[in-house]
Parts: sequence; structure tokens; C-alpha cells
Amino acid sequence: MNFRIRAAREEDCRDIQRMIMELAVYEKMADQMKISHEDLQRDGFGPNPFYRCLIAEVPKELKSDELYTTVGYVLYFYTYSTWKGRSVYMEDLYVMPEFRGKGVGKALMASVARVCVEQQCVRLQFSVLEWNKASLGFYLNKGAEDLTREEGWHLMRFHGAALEKLSHEAP
Amino acid sequence: MNFRIRAAREEDCRDIQRMIMELAVYEKMADQMKISHEDLQRDGFGPNPFYRCLIAEVPKELKSDELYTTVGYVLYFYTYSTWKGRSVYMEDLYVMPEFRGKGVGKALMASVARVCVEQQCVRLQFSVLEWNKASLGFYLNKGAEDLTREEGWHLMRFHGAALEKLSHEAP
Repeated sequence: MNFRIRAAREEDCRDIQRMIMELAVYEKMADQMKISHEDLQRDGFGPNPFYRCLIAEVPKELKSDELYTTVGYVLYFYTYSTWKGRSVYMEDLYVMPEFRGKGVGKALMASVARVCVEQQCVRLQFSVLEWNKASLGFYLNKGAEDLTREEGWHLMRFHGAALEKLSHEAP
Repeated sequence: MNFRIRAAREEDCRDIQRMIMELAVYEKMADQMKISHEDLQRDGFGPNPFYRCLIAEVPKELKSDELYTTVGYVLYFYTYSTWKGRSVYMEDLYVMPEFRGKGVGKALMASVARVCVEQQCVRLQFSVLEWNKASLGFYLNKGAEDLTREEGWHLMRFHGAALEKLSHEAP
């Protein structure tokens, strides 16, 4: 299939927001999704962007049933390992259902890996749900390590009232 | 104990590098630590810093046995949730052994939480090793959620040859 991967621009934020919502609906957690395209514009396209995004685009003649030509995205940001240095974290990778199985997801993933290598980032990290055996298998098959299983890393989070409370303990 | 928390400056990178190494030695993984103070200067103090750092400092009269006055650090960076927006990830939190139990670690942690709240970040995330029950208990007691146990998130990583190979698949 004819498609291309390119860096997202500010005017792509409506499409990115639509696809983030599609992914949330697919995961049956649409009510958790609180991001607007204005948020995405503000947070991704200022002087110190909080994230970066690549999108997959098809030519007009291949547009989706709902007339979209932007059919997938990968959203990532730079992180840092105090042992190894510059790293990348891939937050979301999504392809619209009707465009799956045509290499778009693999191309998005590979494009992030290329950004990593070009920016001298030594690690590409991401998280996968344990029950999502298809995804886990896909990544393991490509050589990813499962750090939770192999080393016992647990992902932890403060938010809401617990975060607020903690911040008040600051000297 | 008299101490203060402040943002790290470029000239603190030797102290930060020393403490990263102390932490690696404590974890019996000193051979994994490959970061120099020059790396830390380049990656943390350019126009688009890969990380941020706060340090804990004691007055000269309380200096360590090896004459250090910088006795702890917390290293973090901004991340992004496509459902909730701006977030912070805390990579390292360390206090020199002879200064532990005096509130320095709690003050560093609370200071990062305050940065979160000030920057409208809704989540503070970090990782803990499963066998480190003392740390896990400390964070859970303060209201943190264990996303690996509760939701099944596994932390995954590509690096080295697998990352290189993946990057060559990019279109």
C-alpha cells in the first residue's frame, strides 16, 4: 500500500486527537481520554515540546471510509537513563483498523527507532499490557526485552490527591 | 538537619555523576554506569534538555566524610500521557548513606511533586524493583499506585542490535 510517514505539524492535532480517541474507544476506556486538540497543539509545538509525533498518511485515492488520509500515528518523547544517557519512550502506536496488516504500524515503529539512532538515543522503551499477548509477542519477536518479567521493574504512579499532598511536603 | 533543595546547575554535574556512581555501586551494578559529567552537562543544560535535576545541599560545617556538601539528588524529565497530558517521570532519587533518615529523600521527592503541580503535570511516575519491598512500601504508603500489579503494565525495551535492526526497517 502506498503511504508515507512524516513528522506531525500543528495542524495535524485534530487528526491526532481523533485517533487517540479511537484507540481509547478500542480499549473501552473512552471516558479516560481528556485531551483536546488545543492541548496537543500547546504541549507538542511550543519551544520545549512535551512530546513528538509522527503520522502515517495515505494518498487521497486511498482515503478511509470517513474520508481521512491520516491513518496512523506514533507519539514519543525523549527520556534519560543515568547509566546509559539519551533514550526515547514510545507512548502510543496506532493504526486505523481498515489500514492494518499493510505495514503501517511496522513503518511507524521503525521510524521511531531511526529517530533514536539519529539522536544517539541508546534505548527505546514502552509499556505493554500483560493480557495483550499479541502485542507482547510482536515486540519480543523483534528483540525487545520485557524488563518487568526479567528484572522485576514495576511502574508506579502518584496522581490526584496523593500527588497534591506530596507536593505540600516540599520544604 | 539543616539542608536546602535547589535546581542543579551545569557546575554540579561532577557531583551528580559521583552520586549516580555511588547509587550504581550500592546496587552492585557499577559496570553498567557509562555516563560522564561531560555527558550530563551536554544532555541536561542545552536548549532542549533531556533531563532536569534538583540537588540537596548541606552547609559546609555538615560536609560529608569526603568533604562533599552536595549530598543527594533527584533526576526527572517531562513525559506525556495522551489521555491526561503533561506528566513527570522520576528516574533517580538518591541520598548519600551518612545523610539518610534526616528527611532529605522526602524533601527531594516532595520538591519534584511540587514541580509537577506547578507545571500542570497530572502524573508523577517512576519504577521500583519488585524485590525492593522497603521502597515499594514507602511509596504505596504515600498513596502511589502500582500499575504493574493493578493493571498489568510491563516495561519493555529495545536496545543495542535489536534497536539498530529495527531502525533499518524504516521506509
